[in-house]
Amino acid sequence: MLAVVTGIPGTGKTTVATKALDILEKEGKKYELITYGDIMVEIAISKNIVKHRDEMRRLNPDQQKEIQKLAAKKISKFSRNKDVLVDTHCTISTPKGYLPGLPEWVLSELKPNFFILIESKPEEIPTRRESDKSRNRDSEITDEIKLHQEMNRSIAAAYSVFTGATVAIIQNRQGQINEAVNRMVEILR
Amino acid sequence: MLAVVTGIPGTGKTTVATKALDILEKEGKKYELITYGDIMVEIAISKNIVKHRDEMRRLNPDQQKEIQKLAAKKISKFSRNKDVLVDTHCTISTPKGYLPGLPEWVLSELKPNFFILIESKPEEIPTRRESDKSRNRDSEITDEIKLHQEMNRSIAAAYSVFTGATVAIIQNRQGQINEAVNRMVEILR
Amino acid sequence: MLAVVTGIPGTGKTTVATKALDILEKEGKKYELITYGDIMVEIAISKNIVKHRDEMRRLNPDQQKEIQKLAAKKISKFSRNKDVLVDTHCTISTPKGYLPGLPEWVLSELKPNFFILIESKPEEIPTRRESDKSRNRDSEITDEIKLHQEMNRSIAAAYSVFTGATVAIIQNRQGQINEAVNRMVEILR
Repeated sequence: MLAVVTGIPGTGKTTVATKALDILEKEGKKYELITYGDIMVEIAISKNIVKHRDEMRRLNPDQQKEIQKLAAKKISKFSRNKDVLVDTHCTISTPKGYLPGLPEWVLSELKPNFFILIESKPEEIPTRRESDKSRNRDSEITDEIKLHQEMNRSIAAAYSVFTGATVAIIQNRQGQINEAVNRMVEILR
Repeated sequence: MLAVVTGIPGTGKTTVATKALDILEKEGKKYELITYGDIMVEIAISKNIVKHRDEMRRLNPDQQKEIQKLAAKKISKFSRNKDVLVDTHCTISTPKGYLPGLPEWVLSELKPNFFILIESKPEEIPTRRESDKSRNRDSEITDEIKLHQEMNRSIAAAYSVFTGATVAIIQNRQGQINEAVNRMVEILR
Repeated sequence: MLAVVTGIPGTGKTTVATKALDILEKEGKKYELITYGDIMVEIAISKNIVKHRDEMRRLNPDQQKEIQKLAAKKISKFSRNKDVLVDTHCTISTPKGYLPGLPEWVLSELKPNFFILIESKPEEIPTRRESDKSRNRDSEITDEIKLHQEMNRSIAAAYSVFTGATVAIIQNRQGQINEAVNRMVEILR
C-alpha cells in the first residue's frame, strides 16, 4: 500500500501525518514515512552527482528527471513489502510557474493507491518567507496561496486519472488539528 | 459515437438524459443508454465472480479494475455500430476520497467523444442519504457537494486531455429542467 | 526550449506575448512566435486537404487529429534549434463543449517546457461576439467566461502532469499590461 500526502508549506502537513501514523501504529498498523526529496538526495549523492543537499537545485532538468524516476522506483520497490506514506509536493511554486511534483514518469513507477491533500485557509497559513516581507498587500499573498491550493486540487485530479488512486482533501483548521488527524487515520487504516 | 453523462446523486442526471434521448429519437437519432455499473455487474455474474449486484463492493481492487476494463471494451465494441450514451460517475465519493470513474485504463478502451457533466446548485440537491441525518450543519453538506462537483470538473478536464473529447457542463436548475434537456439534445444531435 | 501561451479571446494574450518577446530580443534572447493554427493551415494546404483557411472547420475529426499531430511534430522539430513560443488555445469553446487544444497525442510530440495562461477578469473582457448580442443577461456571459478560464486551469494542470512542464497563470489587468509583460519576460528569460 502506498499513500501520498501533500500540502503547501504552512498547512501542517508533516505534523498531521506524523500524528496519524502514531495512532495507526498503536492500532497495530505500521506505515513508513518517506520524504520524496530525501530519497532524491540519497540517490544523487550515491551516484556522485552532488555532494550535498544544497547542490540539488543546480541539477539540469534531465538529471532532475532521471533522479526523480529512480526515487520513484526505489520507493515503489520498498512499498511492495511495507505500507508507505510518501511526503511530497503536489506542485512546487517556482519562478517559472507551478511544477508538478509527480509527473507521468513518476506516477507510472510509483503507482500510489491514495492521495491525501492537506489544506488550510490562506489566512491561517503563516507566511514567514523572506519574499513575503517585501509585499505591501496581504491580499496578494492570500490570493497566491488560494491559487496554489486550487492548482494542487486540479493536478491531483489528473494524478488520479493516471493511477486510479483516490484523492482526499483534508482541511487542517486552526485549533482543530485532531479532526484532520482523525480523517487521515480513517483513510490509512 | 460515444458520449458519457455524469452527475452526482440528486442532480437529475438520468432524468435529463432520458428526456434528451426521447427528443432525439423522435428526430430520428437513436442512442442506446447504457449504465456502466450494469455492464460491470453482468460481466462479474457471467464470470461467476459474484452471484448478485450487492456482492460487487466486496471485489478486491484488482478484480474491480479487471471488470472495469472488460466493461469498457464491451461498451466500446457496442458503440462501433450504434450511438451510445454511457451513464456513469465522474468520481465516486468513497470513505478514502474521490475515486475516478474513468481512469486511464478505462478511457483508453472506451475512447469517448463527448463528456457531459450535469450539475445542480448544492442547495437544490436533495440530501436523503442516511449519513446526512447525523450532521448538524447544513453548510457542511453544501460544502461537500460543492467540492465534489469541483473535483468532477477537474477530473473531466483530465479525461478530455487523455481522449481529446469535449467537456460540456450543464446546469440543471430547479424548475428549468427543459433548459438542461435542450442543451443536452444540442450536444448529442 | 518550447513555451506555450494561451488565453481566451479578449485577454490580450497576443499583445502581451509580442511585447514580452520584444523585450527579450533587446536582451539578446530571441524567440520565434508560432501560431499553432497557422501551422495546421499550412500543412492542410500543402497536403491538398483544403485550399483556404476557412475550409479548416469542415475537416472531419480524424483529419483534424492527423493535422494537429503533424503540426505538433513540425513545431517540435523547429524548437530543437530555436527557442519557440507557441500561441494556441488551452481549450476551444465549441457548441459541443470545451475541446482541449493540446490533447495527449499533441503533447507527446510537442514536449513543451512551460505553459503560460493569460487571464483577465471576466468583466474586463470585451465581448464583441455576435452571439453575445442576443443575450439579455450580462451575468450569463460573465459566468461563461469565468467557467472557461477555470476549465483552462484544470486542463493546463493535466497538460503539466503529462509533460512535466510548469504552469504559470498571469493576470492581465486593465491598464496594467506591463505587469503581465514583465511576468512573462521573467518566465521566458
